[in-house]
Amino acid sequence: MAAVVAVILAGGSGTRFWPLSRSARPKQCLSLDGGPSLLRRTVERLRGLVSADALLVVTGRPMEAAVRAELPELDASQILVEPSGRNTAPSIAWAVARLAPGAPTEGVGDRVVIVLPSDHHIEDEAAFQAALRTAVDAAARLDGLVTLGLSPTRPETGFGYLEIGGPVPGFAGASVRRVAAFREKPDALTAAAYLSGGAHLWNAGMFVFRASVFWAELSAHLPRTAAALAGAGPSISEAQWLQTDAISVDYGVMERCQSIFTVPCAFGWSDVGSWAGAEGLLPVVEGGRGRAGSVRAVQSTGNVVWAPGRDLSLVGLHDTVVIDVGDAVLVMSKTEGEAMRQLLARLQVEAPDLT
Amino acid sequence: MAAVVAVILAGGSGTRFWPLSRSARPKQCLSLDGGPSLLRRTVERLRGLVSADALLVVTGRPMEAAVRAELPELDASQILVEPSGRNTAPSIAWAVARLAPGAPTEGVGDRVVIVLPSDHHIEDEAAFQAALRTAVDAAARLDGLVTLGLSPTRPETGFGYLEIGGPVPGFAGASVRRVAAFREKPDALTAAAYLSGGAHLWNAGMFVFRASVFWAELSAHLPRTAAALAGAGPSISEAQWLQTDAISVDYGVMERCQSIFTVPCAFGWSDVGSWAGAEGLLPVVEGGRGRAGSVRAVQSTGNVVWAPGRDLSLVGLHDTVVIDVGDAVLVMSKTEGEAMRQLLARLQVEAPDLT
Repeated sequence: MAAVVAVILAGGSGTRFWPLSRSARPKQCLSLDGGPSLLRRTVERLRGLVSADALLVVTGRPMEAAVRAELPELDASQILVEPSGRNTAPSIAWAVARLAPGAPTEGVGDRVVIVLPSDHHIEDEAAFQAALRTAVDAAARLDGLVTLGLSPTRPETGFGYLEIGGPVPGFAGASVRRVAAFREKPDALTAAAYLSGGAHLWNAGMFVFRASVFWAELSAHLPRTAAALAGAGPSISEAQWLQTDAISVDYGVMERCQSIFTVPCAFGWSDVGSWAGAEGLLPVVEGGRGRAGSVRAVQSTGNVVWAPGRDLSLVGLHDTVVIDVGDAVLVMSKTEGEAMRQLLARLQVEAPDLT
Repeated sequence: MAAVVAVILAGGSGTRFWPLSRSARPKQCLSLDGGPSLLRRTVERLRGLVSADALLVVTGRPMEAAVRAELPELDASQILVEPSGRNTAPSIAWAVARLAPGAPTEGVGDRVVIVLPSDHHIEDEAAFQAALRTAVDAAARLDGLVTLGLSPTRPETGFGYLEIGGPVPGFAGASVRRVAAFREKPDALTAAAYLSGGAHLWNAGMFVFRASVFWAELSAHLPRTAAALAGAGPSISEAQWLQTDAISVDYGVMERCQSIFTVPCAFGWSDVGSWAGAEGLLPVVEGGRGRAGSVRAVQSTGNVVWAPGRDLSLVGLHDTVVIDVGDAVLVMSKTEGEAMRQLLARLQVEAPDLT
């Protein structure tokens, strides 16, 4: 079996957790339950699968200091700092070029690469590790990219879905399946049908592949990116970086591949995508969930609060997000939809100090 | 015409304005629009009608310092400090005993007394003064108590109503009417009928009477109170105070009198009874009305905010009250009904420092 290495993607700032998250204090460096940060847990979760020196973290300049502070045990060269955000395809390509410098030719230097987001929550760590071992095994033996496919637990319209294809011979109990198709963010009716049909999985951005297989697909589908990053060093110039394609690995590579596999799994996953989405991870308080100096609620239900050290009273309030972090206060309907993005766009212009 | 004196009732703390109002920082000492406080405006509004030394302010121990600081021009003896809150009948009776020591006998010492709450907003000061002059004239000439009756502007169920009786001869243009009956807080249907019928006025707690007339009624209906307070000095013992009847002047005296008059008037009155009720007095901001360091609102309407010096963002939020005053944060539905009272009761027990 090829050596296993890992790439952790830590370049986002988790703006939908504003005002708690900031570009210099990104979501992956936060803890919502008082324990280790999401990034720290992502690293710990790989223990026993990947050795500490076989790990790269890709991040951006605004959050570089926070990421380094969160992972002081890593060598400086294990943290790749992007000159600017260009989505996940260039991030992964750069890391693969660093981790498996011989990758374009299968053989010497070929390795199995695990790609993980840094800002997700996983409830059942043992189930996650078991699924990842299966995926590593599949990636080592199959000529294709392997994704972890999460069993949907609600008719989510914000995620991409994988349509499950036939089982792959040689893997016990249909533990590895072909991916018949990628299905982009569906409408509510379609999402409900996917949920009840049992033939679709969430695409959660967790991939495993041999470096050579990925590089071949990258060269085929995003040749500019492959050319720009082949042989890239531990730091990169803005000029070199701008030669890459600013696109997600899902759109740019995965969906264009002929041979994609998935390991169906269920381990209590959440992308912690918004305050409302993180609700289940927060401790129960009066009137909802969250943390505050104290919370007092009268005729109030379903709220999400975050106001450490503050005395918070809720009266007749339902399904509302209340965040008070000192220099900024946010009060938002839990079903805020696109309005939060509008707010963030305004903040960039009107109050960049707060972003 | 008898000399005119005034009693300003400043004993409440305006708990429904919590957490801005506190027992030591009562509503009447606050300004919602950045101008003078409600109490200061109440005093200024009497200019030209009552001389400064013919004014008494009745308050309680918790807010005594705030009231004295707000009215530094008053002599110490012009502020009567109640040992405990026993509602308005004892407050007024004590003040009348001080203002008109000879009152039990009409003649020497008899005066026209104006009684005003200290925590109401009045839009049209000239109309208020004109109505008050009519009421003073009526009180001087008629053997009865005179109330200012406000034309209702909405089907309010939280106020008492006065049923308008016949006009009183000798006052031009039916400017003074008999009160046919007091109607307590009506249900919504009844309130709507009162509003459309035009035969009812709000009882807003503003009274005018000759001291002798009031004292005779007090002696008839609340004899313990009259006995306890006749000849009372500028300060009073807890023991003496506890001899009085803890009852409002409306229930204890006005409703039991045979001869009540009203001056129908309309001068843009608000009792500033709650955050929602004060909405119209607050400046317009994004997403509603209020004050804050800055307010940024996306898809948000009808909110009432108060967060001086804070950066506040509202997203998809409607008809919600957001108050952030440093040591306490309140987020409340604007239609909170009785829930606010429940909160205040809990605060007394759980966080008395914040009340």
